Amino acid sequence: MAGKVFFSVSMSLDGFIAPADVPYSPRWMAQWTELQQWIFPQRYLRERLKLGEGGEEGRDNDIVRETFERIGASVMGKRMFDLGEPAWPEEAPFHTPVFVVTHTKRDPWERPGGTTFHFVNDGIERALDRAREAAGDRDVRIAGGGATILAYLNAGLIDEFTIALSPVLFGAGTRLFEGVDADRVALDLVCAEPSPRVTHLTYALRKR
Amino acid sequence: MAGKVFFSVSMSLDGFIAPADVPYSPRWMAQWTELQQWIFPQRYLRERLKLGEGGEEGRDNDIVRETFERIGASVMGKRMFDLGEPAWPEEAPFHTPVFVVTHTKRDPWERPGGTTFHFVNDGIERALDRAREAAGDRDVRIAGGGATILAYLNAGLIDEFTIALSPVLFGAGTRLFEGVDADRVALDLVCAEPSPRVTHLTYALRKR
Repeated sequence: MAGKVFFSVSMSLDGFIAPADVPYSPRWMAQWTELQQWIFPQRYLRERLKLGEGGEEGRDNDIVRETFERIGASVMGKRMFDLGEPAWPEEAPFHTPVFVVTHTKRDPWERPGGTTFHFVNDGIERALDRAREAAGDRDVRIAGGGATILAYLNAGLIDEFTIALSPVLFGAGTRLFEGVDADRVALDLVCAEPSPRVTHLTYALRKR
Repeated sequence: MAGKVFFSVSMSLDGFIAPADVPYSPRWMAQWTELQQWIFPQRYLRERLKLGEGGEEGRDNDIVRETFERIGASVMGKRMFDLGEPAWPEEAPFHTPVFVVTHTKRDPWERPGGTTFHFVNDGIERALDRAREAAGDRDVRIAGGGATILAYLNAGLIDEFTIALSPVLFGAGTRLFEGVDADRVALDLVCAEPSPRVTHLTYALRKR
């Protein structure tokens, strides 16, 4: 049985998944850190990113672990890859095949720790097909960024998604749902789970 | 002891509190109904709006009752009043004093059932002062619409707010937080409560 196609992001209460401003500028970093403040203290993430020992082990930590453990392969857009390439540690934090939707032709890029980036030049459906094949019966995560998630959403290719709704307002930035085809995409609330730091919301998609 | 100043709205997952399109047009009504689908089956609201007997009596119903029972006075903007005036039943559904922020000069308009509309011509702070005075130790609700809520939010005059986050995407419409002063307004998550139909989120405000 094939796995699900999902995405999982942290979103500000006003709907942004990334701040305005130049990536990694001081203001961008400050807002980004607020948005992600729930995830960095979690023990599973700290171990995975080699940020140090210890960390929180409550429900937030379980959710981080469950999210990573279900992933058999990831898909990401060119912009997310280009921003990540200089920033990820040598042992890139995916530990699965990653299919990058891009016009750039490039050989697969294998990193220590199990992450291999494959560059797919023939569109989002083909990238997803290859990710499904690589994932087997595990799930495919559409890792981002916003434009790539939206393309899959509007194409009807997402089964479900999870939002960690952070108690922060950005006012400007990249909106998760900017350009969503609201006449086509309908949601069922699967699960809403408050944690001390955020609210975890899971929705399944159905066509209208 | 003075009460709190709060607002309480239903918001789509992509951040809208009202649809695009002309109010009361078929498409507007369809989206509005989806956004508010959680509230109309509730027994307390059905009784209050005289929609008929019966209705749901779970946690959503308690939340509707608690929201209305805490209100000592309401404040609304001119646009919300102008849209509501021809649409509300003769027994307008507020049952408290309502202070309308407007440039229109008009005598108080008393409706059966305890709602009296007062027209305040000297700004949002004065309207709030009068509402606080009328509310005594009960709370003041900033009823809407979006522009009025935002004006109070950016002026630092809101103590807390509740959002019923509906599992629906609008794609366009009136955004609750469009134009929020994110450098000034910071949030603490007070309570997140899932119900079968929506997610009830309560935040307290603090200045940065």
